[in-house]
Amino acid sequence: MTKETFEPQDATKFAKYTPLIEKYNQDVIDQMKMFDEAFYKKCLTQIPDEEELDSEPIDARKYLSLLSEEEQKIVNDYSIPDLTSKQLKGELTAVQVIEAYIKASIVAQLTTNCVMQFLIPEALARARELDAYLKNHSKLVGPLHGVPVSLKEQMNYKGKSTNASYVAYLENIAEKDAVSIGILRRLGAVFHARTAQPQGIMHLDTWNNINGRTRNPVSTRLSPGGSSGGESAIVAMHGSAIGHGSDIGGSVRAPAAFANLYGIRPTTRRLSLLNGLSSGKGQESIVAVQGPLARSIEELNMYMDVYINEGKPWEYDPLCVPLKWREPSLPAKIKIGVLYSDNLVTPLPAVTRGMKTVVEKLKADPSFEVVDLSERWYTEDEMLDTYNANLSLYTCDGNYVQESMFGPSGEPILPLTKHYLEFGGGKELSIYENRMLNAKRDVIKVELLENQFQDIDFILSPTYPGPSELPGESLYWGYTSFWNLVDYPNTVFPTGVIHDVKIDTSVPELKSNTYERMVWFDKAGNLKYDAENYINGPVALQLTGKRYCDEDLVAATQKIANLLKVPRR
Amino acid sequence: MTKETFEPQDATKFAKYTPLIEKYNQDVIDQMKMFDEAFYKKCLTQIPDEEELDSEPIDARKYLSLLSEEEQKIVNDYSIPDLTSKQLKGELTAVQVIEAYIKASIVAQLTTNCVMQFLIPEALARARELDAYLKNHSKLVGPLHGVPVSLKEQMNYKGKSTNASYVAYLENIAEKDAVSIGILRRLGAVFHARTAQPQGIMHLDTWNNINGRTRNPVSTRLSPGGSSGGESAIVAMHGSAIGHGSDIGGSVRAPAAFANLYGIRPTTRRLSLLNGLSSGKGQESIVAVQGPLARSIEELNMYMDVYINEGKPWEYDPLCVPLKWREPSLPAKIKIGVLYSDNLVTPLPAVTRGMKTVVEKLKADPSFEVVDLSERWYTEDEMLDTYNANLSLYTCDGNYVQESMFGPSGEPILPLTKHYLEFGGGKELSIYENRMLNAKRDVIKVELLENQFQDIDFILSPTYPGPSELPGESLYWGYTSFWNLVDYPNTVFPTGVIHDVKIDTSVPELKSNTYERMVWFDKAGNLKYDAENYINGPVALQLTGKRYCDEDLVAATQKIANLLKVPRR
Repeated sequence: MTKETFEPQDATKFAKYTPLIEKYNQDVIDQMKMFDEAFYKKCLTQIPDEEELDSEPIDARKYLSLLSEEEQKIVNDYSIPDLTSKQLKGELTAVQVIEAYIKASIVAQLTTNCVMQFLIPEALARARELDAYLKNHSKLVGPLHGVPVSLKEQMNYKGKSTNASYVAYLENIAEKDAVSIGILRRLGAVFHARTAQPQGIMHLDTWNNINGRTRNPVSTRLSPGGSSGGESAIVAMHGSAIGHGSDIGGSVRAPAAFANLYGIRPTTRRLSLLNGLSSGKGQESIVAVQGPLARSIEELNMYMDVYINEGKPWEYDPLCVPLKWREPSLPAKIKIGVLYSDNLVTPLPAVTRGMKTVVEKLKADPSFEVVDLSERWYTEDEMLDTYNANLSLYTCDGNYVQESMFGPSGEPILPLTKHYLEFGGGKELSIYENRMLNAKRDVIKVELLENQFQDIDFILSPTYPGPSELPGESLYWGYTSFWNLVDYPNTVFPTGVIHDVKIDTSVPELKSNTYERMVWFDKAGNLKYDAENYINGPVALQLTGKRYCDEDLVAATQKIANLLKVPRR
Repeated sequence: MTKETFEPQDATKFAKYTPLIEKYNQDVIDQMKMFDEAFYKKCLTQIPDEEELDSEPIDARKYLSLLSEEEQKIVNDYSIPDLTSKQLKGELTAVQVIEAYIKASIVAQLTTNCVMQFLIPEALARARELDAYLKNHSKLVGPLHGVPVSLKEQMNYKGKSTNASYVAYLENIAEKDAVSIGILRRLGAVFHARTAQPQGIMHLDTWNNINGRTRNPVSTRLSPGGSSGGESAIVAMHGSAIGHGSDIGGSVRAPAAFANLYGIRPTTRRLSLLNGLSSGKGQESIVAVQGPLARSIEELNMYMDVYINEGKPWEYDPLCVPLKWREPSLPAKIKIGVLYSDNLVTPLPAVTRGMKTVVEKLKADPSFEVVDLSERWYTEDEMLDTYNANLSLYTCDGNYVQESMFGPSGEPILPLTKHYLEFGGGKELSIYENRMLNAKRDVIKVELLENQFQDIDFILSPTYPGPSELPGESLYWGYTSFWNLVDYPNTVFPTGVIHDVKIDTSVPELKSNTYERMVWFDKAGNLKYDAENYINGPVALQLTGKRYCDEDLVAATQKIANLLKVPRR
């Protein structure tokens, strides 16, 4: 499917960018080769070709066997605290760690096409520096000393092309690092890969006109989600210890769920967004956030803790709130409101089964109390109205900024780009209309606190209607974008439930609204659900907490993860 | 000047509202009479008539001698902690406290016309309740037990007209209390008066078509500032122990300065704005805040502390940040950057003299270090550009909302209303243009942290060009609105310097930009500065801190106040 081609908007303009794209992509290949040509060649001989990867439900992680046993141990078995404590004890060096992770990221790239830009020489140099520091000072530079962290490419990286997958920005060289990069570097992180995001950074999928489409490690013919799909792919492939993504409508959570990972979309203004490229400059109706993806909730918790408490983003970014990552405070009995459906789009069978499985386990555990939220949730009509408002807010400048960023290169407009440019009719609103939608948003934000959250601690819901998705088919954002609209924080966690072609077959009773039809039917009106499509598709669910209570949310997720006993990926 | 009349936009419509206005204002008179007719009549005989108040520089506080000695002691001498501790010790009752304050507020009303609506029966009933509670439980209900707090009228008060001075909203009965009112009530506050704000809540003056113009207690022919000018007048008249105002361009700070009080414009999202009437629904380019005005910085500090730490606004308003009012952390030597002028409008002589006086005292004190910021401040051109952006953001919906709120009543558009409706040309912008202005704002917000604030702790500057202002003449907002634009918190504190007709005579060298000319020259191009205008005008300055470091800012203000030794008003 990476071979699928789309017509450029302006062929003449686009032709001028073709050499830049080729050069940009060639650098990825060159860096892989230069790092270890023998390893690279061995990978090429064993990893299937693109056509096979695109069409078969291949679990790409099996190719991690291309790494040596010691390397596999490093990337598979050691958590972030293991990596740092082993360095401190002299059992591992930062160079050993990054070399193993670079190899895994090469396997990740060759199977999933998740990397936009490697930073291999920089990573090796930094690892040597860290080793020298540890040797000379007998201490780590910080809690992420020698930890390989992958970065969503849209974050400014000083001196490097920062294009956010806009072809026209291939030669946009960042003058300053993103504030988050500075913080992570001071904490000791090593950066070896900048990962892919979709065109416009606005698909729940990852496909762009620079490096093409990214695949899902759990099944290479599936989408890794998006827009932080490069991150979900590389983290799920053990190509980095933790990934730094961003989310304005589901862009951390959909990828985390699709690749069976843990993810956090924190409340806005806790992690810094400063110095990055997107279409969102000055837009504050729905505010984007950065958030991490990882293989365990413990690692996410530790990451948030050190980023906030030691990184102090507010010292560099005046938009950040100087709120410490606090000790969580959970009640003796955690009350969880359960939302099987958002009353707009009915989830696919595997997701509903996943919800039921988790709810049963919660009910059986005395530390949880489960409340069915369906009675006090918004009606279908209310949700329709809210979702329409939500979508309008994404496009209410009449897509002026997005189009001004696509235009200069004449790049093709991909199908999912067309899809989101038509959100809310793609209509330009007046400032007054924009404000009225903001006001509607704020009413819901208050209602949630007063009503739905009045006597519960967290809300459990699907992350996405399906157990991951086919490329180009992530059409409905509502399960995640609703929470961006109102800015309540979320985590995503694997349930252990995987789509089953034998079990997850029967189509539930469906509603007739536009979005339900969009998800369940094709344009000709035929039911499009085919259980075969979702082979290997994981069910990872979403937990939502009150604003700024991210610590409690993460602690509750940890309790649920302990209950579910899903092994660390 | 209250007699000055303005043509309604639509005389037929407006005529229908005249009886409502009369009835609304009559209630103020009725409540004063009903409370204590003898006292009311005594006030009427001693307090000069409106014409005299409007034309003479009368210090209205002298009419507090109309209160008994014991009442004067209560309203003049006891701080908030005195009031609560005396109640706890049985030396005072809540009823005694509120009765004294009601009398002072009647004097305030008859001299300054600061009250839109009295709540005298409610206040007395509440005080009786509090006395009973204390008797039965031997403890206070909270840290504001029996403390008279005045409320800017625009805050929703359940069951009462909440009109924000829009004539068309006279019959708008609030269904819910403002979140702040709920919090203050739970802390024990007693509400006896809702105070005036100007038309549209957008003058640095207080003048509307419902209750007319409010006067400044320091000189009744001067403006009390605005838009929280009802608050500055009542607090400076000792008609309440503390006043709860709001600020989107200087509306707490200008009134505090004009009436020689302390005021705080905290960082946004620390106090709740929820449930109030204004034109700002859904507008988030420049976010309003609520903030208190009081006679001492210690009382303001205590108020912020209990409002935030005991009131927990985030439990009621999801827009509030759950950031405790922390222990301040000040360096051993506080570094203060001094900005004598914003490079756009040159302050009047008294203000510059006040700045110099304070700077000399700071320089002489080893706990302060003073840095002249003029070298690293923005140039005149940059400030012009920023101020134009700032003004445009106030009107960028093309004044659609404001006009829709004035329209139905056909009320006259007052001169200062015309003035702000023309901010930025009063031009409707596109959402894209709005976003670009937001982006410009955010750049400045970051620059301030990286440059101006890089090695200093606070910025000292004028609050307003003049030592208060003539009614209808508060034309330039830049000294305060700049900080709303970038959302850095401010305090205002009296310096002890009062305008002196003999000293403050010479006109400084002036610039030629529009705003300098607007402040210093009349429309015919003649210099309009006349030292006689500002008799009794106080100089109160503005201190600015880093975002969310409101606690440190207040603590530093307290240190400066200790140094200046200005007696509690």
